[in-house]
Amino acid sequence: MKVNGTPTRTIWLAADGASVCIIDQTRLPHAFEVITLSSWQQAATAIKEMWVRGAPLIGATAAYGLALAMQTDASDSGLELAAAVLRGTRPTAVNLMWALDRMLAVLRPLPQAQRRAAAYAEAAALCDEDVAMNYAIGGHGLEVFRTLWDQRRAAGAERLNVLTHCNAGWLATVDWGTALAPIYRFHDLGLPVHVWVDETRPRNQGASLTAWELNSHGVPHTVIPDNVGGHLMQHGMVDVCIVGTDRTTRQGDVCNKIGTYLKALAAHDTGVPFYVALPGPTIDWALADGVAEIPIEERSALEVTQMTGRTADGRVETVTITPAGSPAGNWGFDVTPARLVTGLITERGVCPASEAGLRGLYPEGV
Amino acid sequence: MKVNGTPTRTIWLAADGASVCIIDQTRLPHAFEVITLSSWQQAATAIKEMWVRGAPLIGATAAYGLALAMQTDASDSGLELAAAVLRGTRPTAVNLMWALDRMLAVLRPLPQAQRRAAAYAEAAALCDEDVAMNYAIGGHGLEVFRTLWDQRRAAGAERLNVLTHCNAGWLATVDWGTALAPIYRFHDLGLPVHVWVDETRPRNQGASLTAWELNSHGVPHTVIPDNVGGHLMQHGMVDVCIVGTDRTTRQGDVCNKIGTYLKALAAHDTGVPFYVALPGPTIDWALADGVAEIPIEERSALEVTQMTGRTADGRVETVTITPAGSPAGNWGFDVTPARLVTGLITERGVCPASEAGLRGLYPEGV
Repeated sequence: MKVNGTPTRTIWLAADGASVCIIDQTRLPHAFEVITLSSWQQAATAIKEMWVRGAPLIGATAAYGLALAMQTDASDSGLELAAAVLRGTRPTAVNLMWALDRMLAVLRPLPQAQRRAAAYAEAAALCDEDVAMNYAIGGHGLEVFRTLWDQRRAAGAERLNVLTHCNAGWLATVDWGTALAPIYRFHDLGLPVHVWVDETRPRNQGASLTAWELNSHGVPHTVIPDNVGGHLMQHGMVDVCIVGTDRTTRQGDVCNKIGTYLKALAAHDTGVPFYVALPGPTIDWALADGVAEIPIEERSALEVTQMTGRTADGRVETVTITPAGSPAGNWGFDVTPARLVTGLITERGVCPASEAGLRGLYPEGV
Repeated sequence: MKVNGTPTRTIWLAADGASVCIIDQTRLPHAFEVITLSSWQQAATAIKEMWVRGAPLIGATAAYGLALAMQTDASDSGLELAAAVLRGTRPTAVNLMWALDRMLAVLRPLPQAQRRAAAYAEAAALCDEDVAMNYAIGGHGLEVFRTLWDQRRAAGAERLNVLTHCNAGWLATVDWGTALAPIYRFHDLGLPVHVWVDETRPRNQGASLTAWELNSHGVPHTVIPDNVGGHLMQHGMVDVCIVGTDRTTRQGDVCNKIGTYLKALAAHDTGVPFYVALPGPTIDWALADGVAEIPIEERSALEVTQMTGRTADGRVETVTITPAGSPAGNWGFDVTPARLVTGLITERGVCPASEAGLRGLYPEGV
């Protein structure tokens, strides 16, 4: 999507044809800065430190990480070491595992001399496929939104009110995003949409990233604390919820940013449709019961106790918001059971959040 | 409760016998500062600017506000003007209306010469009654906690895990608190308790006030983002939820800090008991359906877009956390329907969240 009017992806090959450029998403929304990754270790750091985040972009960064590894050491041990370290950067993201496995399947059989070129080609292909998938998700989601909008407009509404949690926008993918793709396509058709953006504590991906990208693209939106969505749904101020997912089980349970479950409960309680947008690779066919089976990442308490923002005189400053001596807990994700999900919006179409639904679209899934 | 080992209330008469001392709660947890109110206008500012907050303490401050008014102008017009302005400081808090009506009922019939002394006496009585009520709420809640703890201990638990939202502790009342009163009494008996403290965006009353007072009193606790509670409940890490309420309808709907509804939904979905602690005066017998009938206060967007904390070098600094150009929405409360509430814990005992339940305890309620 556009930044200052310039079409931009979240990851691209640098002019030297070897290094890889990313946006430092930890600096958003206060500064737009590009980082050039010139080693696979830097790619691993970029994922671990969340310079890049979002399941599809993590996968793309890991793929380019292996390409960077092949640039300096294309031996079997070089390949396996880089893959193992990259695999350990974020425990919950199944896209990370999927991207690495895909790269390894291409690279392992090749002679060392061919691995560098093949790795860059495969990473580029993976990125282009991500863009195409997200565009397709946007198209299927657009039809869902159009149907809802036809109903709302007939009832006198002036705009479609969408609530989203965290950031499943183009910043979380290579381009377009997953949950935000239908919003961008609806908006780009000139249809009236307004987005309630959950702040998404503790890392504020909504208040910082989703708000920033919607603002950059000119989509009307309002940032709200994570506590607010239930009240809005009780009062008819939300027409549809749409979120992304880091991992989806074969029975349709959805592991997404912590707090998603609470919004799904409110949507269910108030009769608001709750959709989850996902690319096929985030489905984990090995898992059924998400609450019981998905390990949830615990992250640093500093993400809860500290907050970063701009001071009145324009500096970026980090402040501590909790009392000295009070510990904090920080679980990164929660699981929304399939029974609370109205539908899954994939690159192949919309299906019920169930094993039958998913198998109907992905008969090859294993 | 104790601050630095010294028993402290949240509001008290100054040594001059006329001015009124409060704790500036907007400075917590970064600094403990006492403000002396010497006019009724200052008392109104203290409520409006949330130097004091929490339904019972707002009522107590309004009562002393009328006493301060009688100190300088005990005429009918002086009384009515101060009462009208104080009444307009916070639209949602029914305690505020209750306290003012009680003071007016005492003061209006009196000759002007007697109003000053009567006002101070009535305000002091109102405060002492609040302390006694909260102690009684603590006692009834203690029995609920002991029953739960007997079950949990029999199942091998090492502590009772309680989740609370916002601040319904002693800082929200004159002393003891409402939702935290049972926790203090359980803890003071030497029984093992641990409190999950919801941060409570946007004003962070949990992370700043509840964490501060639990820490001051030595109660084990962990601050969590508002998004986390559902995940903890899904995984058996919460034994009971307890919150306060700013306004309770006669059918048991509860209007409390924004986000309470989401936690009640999660508790209901996971089978965790969800209790609401309240003093009788917060019941609004005129209202039945809280979602439909209770007006919800909208507050400044700056509370969402800005955050205050301590810098590494010890200054208190306010930073902006959202992108320039992104608007924010800020509703202060939501309504939790009675069907999601396990029980109401009052100074007269525990009852179902229903009109029959409340009338059983408050047959005089109108």
